[in-house]
Amino acid sequence: MITLRYDVLGIGNAIVDVIARAEDDFLVGQGMHKGTMALIDEARAQAIYAAMGPAIESSGGSAANTVVGVASFGARASFIGKIKDDELGRTFAHDIRAANVAFDTKPASRGPSTARCYIMVTPDGERTMNTYLGAAQDLKPCDIDEAQVASAAVTYLEGYLWDPPQAKEAFVKAAAIAQKNGRRVALTLSDAFCVDRYRTEFLDLIRRAIVDIVFANERELHSLYETADFDSTITALRSDARLAVVTRSEKGCVVVARNAVESVAAEPIGKVADVTGAGDLFAAGFLVGLVRGKDYRTSARLGGLAAAEVIQHIGARPAVSLKALAAENGLPV
Amino acid sequence: MITLRYDVLGIGNAIVDVIARAEDDFLVGQGMHKGTMALIDEARAQAIYAAMGPAIESSGGSAANTVVGVASFGARASFIGKIKDDELGRTFAHDIRAANVAFDTKPASRGPSTARCYIMVTPDGERTMNTYLGAAQDLKPCDIDEAQVASAAVTYLEGYLWDPPQAKEAFVKAAAIAQKNGRRVALTLSDAFCVDRYRTEFLDLIRRAIVDIVFANERELHSLYETADFDSTITALRSDARLAVVTRSEKGCVVVARNAVESVAAEPIGKVADVTGAGDLFAAGFLVGLVRGKDYRTSARLGGLAAAEVIQHIGARPAVSLKALAAENGLPV
Repeated sequence: MITLRYDVLGIGNAIVDVIARAEDDFLVGQGMHKGTMALIDEARAQAIYAAMGPAIESSGGSAANTVVGVASFGARASFIGKIKDDELGRTFAHDIRAANVAFDTKPASRGPSTARCYIMVTPDGERTMNTYLGAAQDLKPCDIDEAQVASAAVTYLEGYLWDPPQAKEAFVKAAAIAQKNGRRVALTLSDAFCVDRYRTEFLDLIRRAIVDIVFANERELHSLYETADFDSTITALRSDARLAVVTRSEKGCVVVARNAVESVAAEPIGKVADVTGAGDLFAAGFLVGLVRGKDYRTSARLGGLAAAEVIQHIGARPAVSLKALAAENGLPV
Repeated sequence: MITLRYDVLGIGNAIVDVIARAEDDFLVGQGMHKGTMALIDEARAQAIYAAMGPAIESSGGSAANTVVGVASFGARASFIGKIKDDELGRTFAHDIRAANVAFDTKPASRGPSTARCYIMVTPDGERTMNTYLGAAQDLKPCDIDEAQVASAAVTYLEGYLWDPPQAKEAFVKAAAIAQKNGRRVALTLSDAFCVDRYRTEFLDLIRRAIVDIVFANERELHSLYETADFDSTITALRSDARLAVVTRSEKGCVVVARNAVESVAAEPIGKVADVTGAGDLFAAGFLVGLVRGKDYRTSARLGGLAAAEVIQHIGARPAVSLKALAAENGLPV
């Protein structure tokens, strides 16, 4: 039996976010679909950057944000993702390591630059993302370290990994290692358009129980089952998945297990500044709850607390210690 | 007579801020003087970056922040400062141009990289800065475009320009052009340690009336006159300077003119998140008031509004339109 060294290992695209405020008109003018993630090439990246307002740069990436959240709760986290050995890649590596996440994936020494996500935050706090995958496209099965996966209680994978051509194979390899070692595999569906691209494959992963825990928001779930009826998606999910959590923004979340379906209210919050990372941080809290043996309701509340923290400021990573925040809210972890 | 094209031209070090939260213990451990700016070399920059927490990158630089504030008030702004033609330099150029500030200084194609300022923000909102000047050191008199200076109502210079060896000459050249064309020259004393390094020269600039408007905070003023007695610094300043504004944090500011000394209260604010840029944005509001023909009290209130906005979030540049903020507060510009 391999020793447990990490609570959560995240595998995902290593991305630096470039965040600017924008009006809704800007999205329309740029042909962007509000609230979604679009993949863009380098030329489009340059065009968007030239058109967008003053920005800040902040390390991001969906699974990377999640493991940073896990570490902020005081749990043990690691990450696998591909950067280039360039300025932005060094920024990504600095930030994730400084957040106490183990990160040892070998950077690419040539090829495209470190991935960037151009994020427009509209006055309502919604975010619209444009991702240039760059070096993240080069994540390969050889980047998956068997010992690292085997030593993590949960391996958390982002659906976005289906986009880069070889990352999918890395994903499948990691899931197989986790299963062989009796560890759990979690998957986030990432984005409704992403689900639309890979619906059959995602359903297959869930139905074959290669994935133990599924994270989805309502839009992703409607896309997965191609229906606008929420109740029927929950029924389908309960039949397909071992365990799933469906996040519903201000309506809280629904934990869908084989033996029970449980709704948990959202945390009360002030003004929403930027929803980027809400789902990522929810997953962080929920996973920390699970690995610490909390019940589903408590785990969901931990997820809700982390999500509430991150949407009240710009940027997709926590600005305070989530461990301290959880303790202040009577949920010590 | 050269046509007026800009309300304010800022000349300063072109810097990208790397901002992280830190505890007071971290400052002590790193030998940093809280609330001040220290100049560092590349090796020290790397050591600080390795030791500091997860960061965000946001364009900064004292005079650059000021002209971005001026533009946010809807006034016409331009900037002269030296970047390198590298990733960070492109970030700086993007951000200042996206903020509607004209910026045409030729980037350095070789030599040190674009300047970075490592900023630690402690829980009290105070910031402690460590500046690697890099390419900013290469600002030279030839970078000062005579027509640009001549066409600006106010040329605003930062005391920090005294640090890079040749920037001082650029400063003097710009001031001479402004004077010759009947424009006004403003100087911020920048930092108490900076004043300590160049006290004689700053006093000379003020007393010889090469500088028309002086911005200083209390600490800088005490350093300038080497006394802890506030009233005597005001008396000295009134005798030395044509016009000066002394900012006093939550105590507001004092406008010191030959014919009157006037105190103006600070704007009420919520929690202080990060004081970086407070002085820079105060100067922006005050200068916009002056060039729009407002009285000193109104100009000081505009400065106070801008400073209050910037200290309530992370980063040294406004997150909202200062023109709209001023209008909401009954001070249309």
